[in-house]
Amino acid sequence: MEIDFSSLLARLKSEDKILILTHMNPDGDTLGSAFALLRILRKMGKKAKVYCSDKIPEKFSYLYENVENEDFTPEFIMSVDVADIKLLGAKEKDEYKDKIDLSIDHHEKNRLFAKESYVESDSASNSEIIFLIAEAFGVMDEEIANCIYTGVTTDTGCFRYSNVTSRTHKIAGKLIDYGADHSRINVKMFETKSKNYLSLEKYALQNLELFCEDKLAFISVSKKTLDECGCEESDLDGICAIPRQIEGVKVGITLKEKADGTISASVRTGEEVSASDICARFGGGGHNRAAGCKFSDDMNIVKEKLIAYISKEIL
Amino acid sequence: MEIDFSSLLARLKSEDKILILTHMNPDGDTLGSAFALLRILRKMGKKAKVYCSDKIPEKFSYLYENVENEDFTPEFIMSVDVADIKLLGAKEKDEYKDKIDLSIDHHEKNRLFAKESYVESDSASNSEIIFLIAEAFGVMDEEIANCIYTGVTTDTGCFRYSNVTSRTHKIAGKLIDYGADHSRINVKMFETKSKNYLSLEKYALQNLELFCEDKLAFISVSKKTLDECGCEESDLDGICAIPRQIEGVKVGITLKEKADGTISASVRTGEEVSASDICARFGGGGHNRAAGCKFSDDMNIVKEKLIAYISKEIL
Repeated sequence: MEIDFSSLLARLKSEDKILILTHMNPDGDTLGSAFALLRILRKMGKKAKVYCSDKIPEKFSYLYENVENEDFTPEFIMSVDVADIKLLGAKEKDEYKDKIDLSIDHHEKNRLFAKESYVESDSASNSEIIFLIAEAFGVMDEEIANCIYTGVTTDTGCFRYSNVTSRTHKIAGKLIDYGADHSRINVKMFETKSKNYLSLEKYALQNLELFCEDKLAFISVSKKTLDECGCEESDLDGICAIPRQIEGVKVGITLKEKADGTISASVRTGEEVSASDICARFGGGGHNRAAGCKFSDDMNIVKEKLIAYISKEIL
Repeated sequence: MEIDFSSLLARLKSEDKILILTHMNPDGDTLGSAFALLRILRKMGKKAKVYCSDKIPEKFSYLYENVENEDFTPEFIMSVDVADIKLLGAKEKDEYKDKIDLSIDHHEKNRLFAKESYVESDSASNSEIIFLIAEAFGVMDEEIANCIYTGVTTDTGCFRYSNVTSRTHKIAGKLIDYGADHSRINVKMFETKSKNYLSLEKYALQNLELFCEDKLAFISVSKKTLDECGCEESDLDGICAIPRQIEGVKVGITLKEKADGTISASVRTGEEVSASDICARFGGGGHNRAAGCKFSDDMNIVKEKLIAYISKEIL
């Protein structure tokens, strides 16, 4: 059932011993939302903890600084920035099936898998919703502001994407007033490249392929390449933006070979094409300009499938 | 003489036949300020024109869309985003010496070369000041908002740099309310790379050099390399951010060989080091984290001079 904002606040106010779930392959928005919410709930005197099925990348460690572990049996289970129960993780999707009490999300295609869902699909980031919650409860502080700012800035490519609204900037301004360390967070998220990441970027630029009259660009990264560069899968997040950035390219795709041999495709599109539609065709989903899907085929087969579909249907 | 904001408004209100000068090697802030101000003044019934000593890069052409040429003999000469008369251009610095009636600027080290100067050194971009002017005169429209947004976003690296304040975001939010086409502007400024630019970026990554225990990084681009990549000097603006982004690097420098054989250095620094101080040592200047200076030596000599100074004095 979808609920409105005041019911959301009432629900959060009335529950305790809360487990907050993030999506797998965690990004700044799911983690920023989760740890901001954890801090909000604890300031309200509740027990709360965060669970993520995957390892949290080191660069996000400041989000849970000073957050002590609390051990308790959850009585209320919620998810943040999770559009589909499948995105909780391979094991978790079964474990938590029909057990999510509340979902707070901003994905247009949220599957409404929870008992109650609060979805703002025109919110640039899920963290914007958490901002509204923190203000409503009057518990905002510097650390909460840092968590929320992290979600806001990462899910908008630092205020660059088309999802940014006037509200996004107004919230960012208020977060800075609350003491968010915006500059340091942006340096960490966007301006710091390890030497290993640089070699991955060099590889990406050298191996970029263009198809469909240069309107479709691919970067394909095998597990072997990733290992040779000394990079982790999460390092590929930065690479994904590159193919779409080339002048004239309408669809940019980054193919990544996962540890289990499957291929995940990260699709970015310009104004004319919907990334979400392309990925939906292959059982995936996401946002209008940035979406993803998965394949159990060989890298070259995946490329052929995508080229065949995109060239016929889209370009 | 420095003047306050109400005197600035009074001055703009009382003058007519206004020539607006930008700095040479024009960027989004000087051009956004100039064309926003031109539109503001024309809406107030005045004659106004913009002059820049260098060719305006094609990507900024939307700033002067629908702006018709007006021919008149200027009776009031002003500059926007110009810290020093020298920055008007080699010829222009003599032509306009002692002739600038009004300077609107946000550089801390503005030389106060104009008869009257309005300087807000804590403003992230000069365009923020132009926003205040447009609001004060009640003439804001979509095209003015686009010009101002361009300055705001380019001078902050799309809201990424430490110069961003709460006001910057609040202004950006209002500009979106006024109809600024933020997403398209950001795609144009930050998300579009020509194939030629990509080869320059590839070159930069391959030829990056590290010194001083990897705390100092250089990219050196000769005129020949620039030509081989099919790039213009303005394409180097995007490259300049790269050396400082490497993990552990405190000073990142991009050296560019100009058409006349001189070398210009673009210096970017992290929190601990002042780019402006380094450049001041070599007769240049700029902001705390991003500044520039010029040399008439050979590229290698320049590198040696910079390494010698930075390793001793700074690192």
